Amino acid sequence: MTYLQSVKWEEDALVLLDQRLLPTKQEYVRLETAEAAWHAIKDLTVRGAPAIGMAAAYGLYLGIRHSAQETFDGFWAEMREQSDYLNASRPTAVNLGWALRRMEQKAQEEKHLPISELKAVLLDEAKRIQDSDEAACRAIGEYGAELLQDGMGILTHCNAGGLATGRYGTALSPIYIAAEKGVHVKVYADETRPVLQGARLTAYELQEAGIDVTLICDNMAAMVMKNGWVDGVIVGADRIAANGDTANKIGTYGVALLAKAHNIPFYVAAPLSTIDIMTPDGSAIPIEERDESEITIGFGTRTAPEGVKVYNPAFDVTPHEYITGIITEKGIIRAPFAESIHNLMNNE
Amino acid sequence: MTYLQSVKWEEDALVLLDQRLLPTKQEYVRLETAEAAWHAIKDLTVRGAPAIGMAAAYGLYLGIRHSAQETFDGFWAEMREQSDYLNASRPTAVNLGWALRRMEQKAQEEKHLPISELKAVLLDEAKRIQDSDEAACRAIGEYGAELLQDGMGILTHCNAGGLATGRYGTALSPIYIAAEKGVHVKVYADETRPVLQGARLTAYELQEAGIDVTLICDNMAAMVMKNGWVDGVIVGADRIAANGDTANKIGTYGVALLAKAHNIPFYVAAPLSTIDIMTPDGSAIPIEERDESEITIGFGTRTAPEGVKVYNPAFDVTPHEYITGIITEKGIIRAPFAESIHNLMNNE
Repeated sequence: MTYLQSVKWEEDALVLLDQRLLPTKQEYVRLETAEAAWHAIKDLTVRGAPAIGMAAAYGLYLGIRHSAQETFDGFWAEMREQSDYLNASRPTAVNLGWALRRMEQKAQEEKHLPISELKAVLLDEAKRIQDSDEAACRAIGEYGAELLQDGMGILTHCNAGGLATGRYGTALSPIYIAAEKGVHVKVYADETRPVLQGARLTAYELQEAGIDVTLICDNMAAMVMKNGWVDGVIVGADRIAANGDTANKIGTYGVALLAKAHNIPFYVAAPLSTIDIMTPDGSAIPIEERDESEITIGFGTRTAPEGVKVYNPAFDVTPHEYITGIITEKGIIRAPFAESIHNLMNNE
Repeated sequence: MTYLQSVKWEEDALVLLDQRLLPTKQEYVRLETAEAAWHAIKDLTVRGAPAIGMAAAYGLYLGIRHSAQETFDGFWAEMREQSDYLNASRPTAVNLGWALRRMEQKAQEEKHLPISELKAVLLDEAKRIQDSDEAACRAIGEYGAELLQDGMGILTHCNAGGLATGRYGTALSPIYIAAEKGVHVKVYADETRPVLQGARLTAYELQEAGIDVTLICDNMAAMVMKNGWVDGVIVGADRIAANGDTANKIGTYGVALLAKAHNIPFYVAAPLSTIDIMTPDGSAIPIEERDESEITIGFGTRTAPEGVKVYNPAFDVTPHEYITGIITEKGIIRAPFAESIHNLMNNE
């Protein structure tokens, strides 16, 4: 199967597949500063919670690699400043803060090293974050694939595929791993307005990998379910609260309600780095609102009247009671979620 | 308030507001043949079930006005041929067939007239269909306005406004009539993929009329409801079966399920001409599937990979059990719908 790599470290630079140009153009951009990484995260050149985390880790390295500081204290102050800056690029995805904190922790652990060596260690840590994400996605795929049977219909929303992660993806990983084992499902991809990650990215990467995929508009999901074509829903996550409430791309909550109305199991697939035990429940998750032009000017053409009011939340929260299970790299978490999550995080 | 008229008869021609160009251009096209009317219905120059009915009635007149037949039998054969032709332009909206049958019935009633006079009578009948639609929409508005209170939030899907009808609209008529009486609601308009009737038409006509409207993507409706901003949903209809099952723009069924999950009343607004007592239930309503390019090439830009499979139903069916009431020009029909509809249609 063909896998596109959306985040790479090549020749001393962060190299990102520009996801805004897919599916018509496959172009990589080369970033050499933390500012460039900040903008790439903000403007969705890179998107997908795990991929954002990786880009931020590399971005933090870019922000400190030319530091002239000679003491750890001076270096640490600069690093914290760069980290806070990158952390503010997008508010909802918890992997962003998680990856930055992991970099900071590494710096603290290795504070005895000369600054030049410490910088090298931090680049290694960023690469390790990427490697461990790939391993986590693979494990998510292994656990999730056990839920799938040949000929099943699976609906997904947004893109939680290889493009959103190191490789395989989260929601799509079970589908890829199942296919490697000869178990083929039929995927229904919500196009996912306003930015159309489903049409541009999910349909694209599944088609490239030879997976049977049918593209639908978000508002067709209910009918596709009523037609009896969907045996399960799998989506990704941007942040999972301690009680299992899950923030994911806008529209996910509606899909969960529709799945429940049709008695279809609804799964979230995410690495443990997406679980934020400091957030008690969904009401505490900050929801990013994005520019109205994403809705009023769709891909170059104005499709709504000038001056119309717009509400454009980038994410919504699905309460845990609508979630059948959370597929992680350590197994599938089920209700009672608060307890299951607590146990899993403490055994990690 | 400013009302745009989408269907007009002017200087011996059918004049249609080209709804494909809204909201950026307000252009009327002048049609002088049944073929031109067929294409205008098929390609969505005119859309909205009642407006399609009016355009078809005028289109049928255009198809027979130059008939060289001198006997009624010859004229009738030509008229039936034109009627069948126009009836095939779109399969789901029942008002199309209803308007054509009304024209045919008028021809039968006046078969004793000389053909030239009969033609004039048929043009009058088409105008009467338009006038009675406007009166029906006004009455729907009066009944529906009684459901509204100042400050309420109302969500609507697609465009069932003045652009879809003679004037006022169906779903939007209660909102306009309430506003005339000083009762102002806040409208949430689903953009309604793939053709964006909500963004292009509903947001536009409400804004023009000075109604408070907020545009959202279809997949945001669930969150807007969860936020507590929606007190009721009102949508139009393309065909209502004898048991109350309602075909309307794709996505309506999903909105109905979301409304139920949030305990929000869900109303359908439609003239009695939308009720098809020959269709026992929703399963018998033909659902038009439209071209994949509506989804893959949104407004000039390709947003999905070449060759991807697409499912693009233009309508879905909302089972009557999810409908709180059907607002008609004769009052609001409530459950048990089969009985209520039967009684209403027989008292008409």
